[in-house]
Amino acid sequence: MPKVKLILAYDGTAYHGFQKQSGSGLPTIQDALERCLAELSGNVIKVIGAGRTDAGVHARGQVVGFATGGWAIPTGRIAAALNGVLPDDIVAVEACEVPEGFHARYSALAKTYSYTIFNHRVRSPFWRLYSLHVRDPLEIAAMRQAARHLVGQHDFSSFQATGRPVRSAVRLLSRAEVEFAPPLVRLTFRADGFLYNMVRIMVGTLVEVGLGRLDPEAVPDIIAARDRKRAGPTAPAHGLCLEAVEYDLT
Amino acid sequence: MPKVKLILAYDGTAYHGFQKQSGSGLPTIQDALERCLAELSGNVIKVIGAGRTDAGVHARGQVVGFATGGWAIPTGRIAAALNGVLPDDIVAVEACEVPEGFHARYSALAKTYSYTIFNHRVRSPFWRLYSLHVRDPLEIAAMRQAARHLVGQHDFSSFQATGRPVRSAVRLLSRAEVEFAPPLVRLTFRADGFLYNMVRIMVGTLVEVGLGRLDPEAVPDIIAARDRKRAGPTAPAHGLCLEAVEYDLT
Repeated sequence: MPKVKLILAYDGTAYHGFQKQSGSGLPTIQDALERCLAELSGNVIKVIGAGRTDAGVHARGQVVGFATGGWAIPTGRIAAALNGVLPDDIVAVEACEVPEGFHARYSALAKTYSYTIFNHRVRSPFWRLYSLHVRDPLEIAAMRQAARHLVGQHDFSSFQATGRPVRSAVRLLSRAEVEFAPPLVRLTFRADGFLYNMVRIMVGTLVEVGLGRLDPEAVPDIIAARDRKRAGPTAPAHGLCLEAVEYDLT
Repeated sequence: MPKVKLILAYDGTAYHGFQKQSGSGLPTIQDALERCLAELSGNVIKVIGAGRTDAGVHARGQVVGFATGGWAIPTGRIAAALNGVLPDDIVAVEACEVPEGFHARYSALAKTYSYTIFNHRVRSPFWRLYSLHVRDPLEIAAMRQAARHLVGQHDFSSFQATGRPVRSAVRLLSRAEVEFAPPLVRLTFRADGFLYNMVRIMVGTLVEVGLGRLDPEAVPDIIAARDRKRAGPTAPAHGLCLEAVEYDLT
């Protein structure tokens, strides 16, 4: 019973997140994918996603794992078969076979998220679903300085949605970068794991820095406080994109 | 009674083109804009658009002209006022005052359209509404060679939708460029005017060339034939974007 790792890209605009919401009737990415897998295979195939992206969050590199069960399809043909039936806002990028012990979420070693800001006086009709619009010019150098303070192994409790406690809020943030290609500001974060809303709160904090409302040198204190109230607001979901999930598949 | 030239950007996905369709009940850009102008001014303000973009066609530089009538607003504030009430897929970029004789369509000296092709084996969920997906690799050099033959003053009858005859199909195409930033191919056309579906038929023809189904050296014959059947298919609307309209306002 081969196990498959499938890379998925999607525009999250029309979905209430990745994960199935039993009985809610709200459309999710998982629902759409499982429906297509059932249509193609004639079987019930349950998938596990690496990241439970929220409503409106996009993905270029979501990973899902599933067992093909009785579905006799060469792994190399799965992506094309799915793309024949998936709605056009969800795309199967590629599928490969993985060891039986593979678990899309628990086996993940690192994830990378991007967050896009449209930084221009006038909003854009084309970026409205894929970026946060910030009207006033952002101080990129200050944002980079603040981002550097985020990198490292920290207790990120200040950057965690309240009411979602986890056993440990310690995460290793290996990348926090700010790229500027006017009028777009692209933030990229890579970590061994992310707390709930962690990227969006880091972004909200960096935007405060970019607007001059927060000193970049205040970031170490904000981290040390382990207090959600000390960090910036939670940036909206639609600027966020799950770019990649990494595994050790050797 | 000052006359205003307003630059408009919009995502045409949700609209049945620019122009009002009396009694059809179908939403158009003109409807949305005139509704907002009425809301802000308390008057009926009728606008004229430079290009009657079709359903699904986008714009970064559509131009509309209108008389402000009894609306006492400084021209410099019109764009911001409109952006406060326009739906988020339509953006007022900027407004300026123009001579009374200004007519958005008849005064236009040149228009520039772009057409975007997403040229990759796997389609993209993010480009689906803004590009034509072409799976097989396009021969960019051949497309450029064909595009060069289109440039100049020609009778473009071969590149005109059938059933839409005009007095003269002679147009001066001053620009036909093919840019390649993988996986995107961006075609740009500038002319003193375009026939109905002219850009989309030129694109359909260049795609045939790019796929090796048509020799770029066949283009002069296709032009000379003045026969729609000789050119390629009409590329779909959603890859098309009205980039700019030029006037002599000195």
